[in-house]
Amino acid sequence: MIHTCRNQNLFFSNPRHGQRELTARRFVSDCLVVVNFKTYQTAHGASAEELARAMSGIETNARMIAAVSALDLAAVVAAAPGLEVWCQHLDPVGFGSNTGWLHPETAIERGATGTLINHAEHKVSIEHVAMLLDQVPEGFEVCACAADVDEAMALSALVPTYVAVEPPELIGGDASVTSADPGIVSSTAAAVREVSEEVGILCGAGVKTGADVAKAIELGTIGVLLASGVTKAEDPGAALSGLISEL
Amino acid sequence: MIHTCRNQNLFFSNPRHGQRELTARRFVSDCLVVVNFKTYQTAHGASAEELARAMSGIETNARMIAAVSALDLAAVVAAAPGLEVWCQHLDPVGFGSNTGWLHPETAIERGATGTLINHAEHKVSIEHVAMLLDQVPEGFEVCACAADVDEAMALSALVPTYVAVEPPELIGGDASVTSADPGIVSSTAAAVREVSEEVGILCGAGVKTGADVAKAIELGTIGVLLASGVTKAEDPGAALSGLISEL
Amino acid sequence: MIHTCRNQNLFFSNPRHGQRELTARRFVSDCLVVVNFKTYQTAHGASAEELARAMSGIETNARMIAAVSALDLAAVVAAAPGLEVWCQHLDPVGFGSNTGWLHPETAIERGATGTLINHAEHKVSIEHVAMLLDQVPEGFEVCACAADVDEAMALSALVPTYVAVEPPELIGGDASVTSADPGIVSSTAAAVREVSEEVGILCGAGVKTGADVAKAIELGTIGVLLASGVTKAEDPGAALSGLISEL
Amino acid sequence: MIHTCRNQNLFFSNPRHGQRELTARRFVSDCLVVVNFKTYQTAHGASAEELARAMSGIETNARMIAAVSALDLAAVVAAAPGLEVWCQHLDPVGFGSNTGWLHPETAIERGATGTLINHAEHKVSIEHVAMLLDQVPEGFEVCACAADVDEAMALSALVPTYVAVEPPELIGGDASVTSADPGIVSSTAAAVREVSEEVGILCGAGVKTGADVAKAIELGTIGVLLASGVTKAEDPGAALSGLISEL
Repeated sequence: MIHTCRNQNLFFSNPRHGQRELTARRFVSDCLVVVNFKTYQTAHGASAEELARAMSGIETNARMIAAVSALDLAAVVAAAPGLEVWCQHLDPVGFGSNTGWLHPETAIERGATGTLINHAEHKVSIEHVAMLLDQVPEGFEVCACAADVDEAMALSALVPTYVAVEPPELIGGDASVTSADPGIVSSTAAAVREVSEEVGILCGAGVKTGADVAKAIELGTIGVLLASGVTKAEDPGAALSGLISEL
Repeated sequence: MIHTCRNQNLFFSNPRHGQRELTARRFVSDCLVVVNFKTYQTAHGASAEELARAMSGIETNARMIAAVSALDLAAVVAAAPGLEVWCQHLDPVGFGSNTGWLHPETAIERGATGTLINHAEHKVSIEHVAMLLDQVPEGFEVCACAADVDEAMALSALVPTYVAVEPPELIGGDASVTSADPGIVSSTAAAVREVSEEVGILCGAGVKTGADVAKAIELGTIGVLLASGVTKAEDPGAALSGLISEL
Repeated sequence: MIHTCRNQNLFFSNPRHGQRELTARRFVSDCLVVVNFKTYQTAHGASAEELARAMSGIETNARMIAAVSALDLAAVVAAAPGLEVWCQHLDPVGFGSNTGWLHPETAIERGATGTLINHAEHKVSIEHVAMLLDQVPEGFEVCACAADVDEAMALSALVPTYVAVEPPELIGGDASVTSADPGIVSSTAAAVREVSEEVGILCGAGVKTGADVAKAIELGTIGVLLASGVTKAEDPGAALSGLISEL
Repeated sequence: MIHTCRNQNLFFSNPRHGQRELTARRFVSDCLVVVNFKTYQTAHGASAEELARAMSGIETNARMIAAVSALDLAAVVAAAPGLEVWCQHLDPVGFGSNTGWLHPETAIERGATGTLINHAEHKVSIEHVAMLLDQVPEGFEVCACAADVDEAMALSALVPTYVAVEPPELIGGDASVTSADPGIVSSTAAAVREVSEEVGILCGAGVKTGADVAKAIELGTIGVLLASGVTKAEDPGAALSGLISEL
């Protein structure tokens, strides 16, 4: 049996602020595969552009998204024009005296269509997330990362576009969260639903295969957030193809 | 008309994790007046002990709580044995190599019965609040501070004992939040209720008089968090008496 | 009288690690005018490219340097190929799991030749500065910012390429540090000299005119760090020309 | 051969601001043994008081210093009146609106005679250290911790009373820095001397025995900073006695 996002309930089809029309069925095109390039050597500079091109070359109805370094953003957008490109972090600053901080509007002008925030490797205050959400324009997607169910619920109350749950102890590891701790995925999905019906749910940590992605969907998410499964793969193109093979 | 906590609905009578029995009516004894000593000169060292004694001398059925510096905690507890004393901040660290951080268990051994966290003057990550809540024993009260409705909702998802909303621009000012921005108080109360029925709601910023406290209760809170209204008063004892005069 | 860097003593001609040959006289070509684009609306996105082009069009023997957002770096480098472009901040992370942090090597691959660090608007720990200096390759310039003499001395002990002293209370203001507080500039220059003879000294805050730059050189620096004097100027090109007019 | 502080050169006899008279020889009474209680279970709450009493019971001419949690400070001072007691961290805040921060003046009123700052487990900005040093009264000792030579030199430029070098990878371990990496101790001592002759030098990490302390003195320090060697000892009193046995 091929798992698809189609069998999810309709809550998921309406991520954040209703900017997409409510439909009774969800489609594979709503499924997300977010590849976090982090600062991997194989996913920075020219290698980031190459990996982005590989992503945009994958035939799939799922949404492939590259989350890249601010330093690589413009070049990646230029290299892979059709690809959705996110930042890995943004700061809720305005125009003015904010030396060294990452202004959302500059990111948007450089082609970012969304961002991660509060990743386990880059924690911020609730206020940071809330201010960022207030500041970004409608349609700019914000994926807030959570280490566990409690944090996922708290973030969901701020109604980001997505909440991604990633148990830190599994990040970068061999075991996929979907098999090592499926309970955290399904219970996060249920808990987030309780707080907000608008927030999409992702899961991550150790995700590497098409079976992992399919399982993530089955557990109540609309997609996955992953990194080393692609960036450390011997053949990243094959790894990417594998990820969407069971959707 | 004298406002009391009695006319609140029963959600409020059951703060956090159901450790108090659900009752149909709430009583003045559920009302909180939390005095944040901050690092005010009039509320540190020996002055902290004196202010705490003044607080414990007030005749009221409301709960008077002193939130003091970690450096003053033990001395204040000794000086005003009947008074509830909270910390102003704690760190979710365990026993071990955590130089300079404030261990909850040490605070409890020194007599703290609760703590503020995420105050506008001391912001922390969601993870910090979540870990602290996981770590403290049942009965130890945690009051998470929020700058606005969004932050209050996010914190409520973590189910602290209380959420206190304090618009930063009004903190330390002349106007009480209850008159300057009553909408933020009532809308926060409503929003928190949506997320959790167990979380008690406080408000603060500019609170100085019994009328401010009464108005706070009327707007849906179970009490107030204040500082300069007492610590900067010419006669702190009179200021304290005034605060509970309309309960 | 026209002030130039020429009349400085030879310490200044040998910034960091001796990578330039020691010479008995310093030249205007050693003078730095670092324009910090911050997140000013007039200096981000396409406007950053335009301002960088204006900078590279100025006829001068001084070194004009643009310190830009990580998000704008690659585009600014492409827009103004001859211009030295710095980052406003970098993080001392390696390759790997460092979501959202700014890797020096990626910055270098994108064309950065240096960076600011520890700006008053983006303070970091001593360890952050020390690790960054350990990590960057020879020739990559690091300008550590200090609020006062003490901080300048501490940073100098780490031997960054430059230390820039900027009294925070003067940043973005109308009065140039060179006239409002010339003593802090000369005493910082003397103090830094005591700690290290290899560190170049810049000053900043309120710098707007050629006279300010000339005065900075006279006070013992090899250049200036400025922002609003250019980014908020009605005619940035004229402002830039003015800055180097007395060198 | 018994090592003593006596054979050090006279630089060491004049820590910070010349508040002690310069003498030609140093004495054991200038040697420091700073025990960092951290948040060890065996060194918090009532156990902190007990350990402090054990320290004050040791017969020695060396200076024994307990660095304790802010929460335990007042009680430890009361329990061991003759003992020097330091904080593990302080914040350079003034009187006023600084919820949850540790005010130096409150620490002093509660009996602290000094503090650690910038410990590897609690890093701060240079500005934090500089402001703290500006703020504390003469005679209040500040021991700034450094991970390596560079950081030690930077901190020395701020002229704290002491700089303690502790390689983080050895903290809490079995091997004493004095045998595992004696070079870092002697080179730090030399480097600090270059920057300031007023700063006393301590070393730490893995220090457990009297031989370790003697070796530290021999390498150019005036004492040691240690934690687990005492707090995790089966017989802390014996461990303490051992530490000063070769002075």
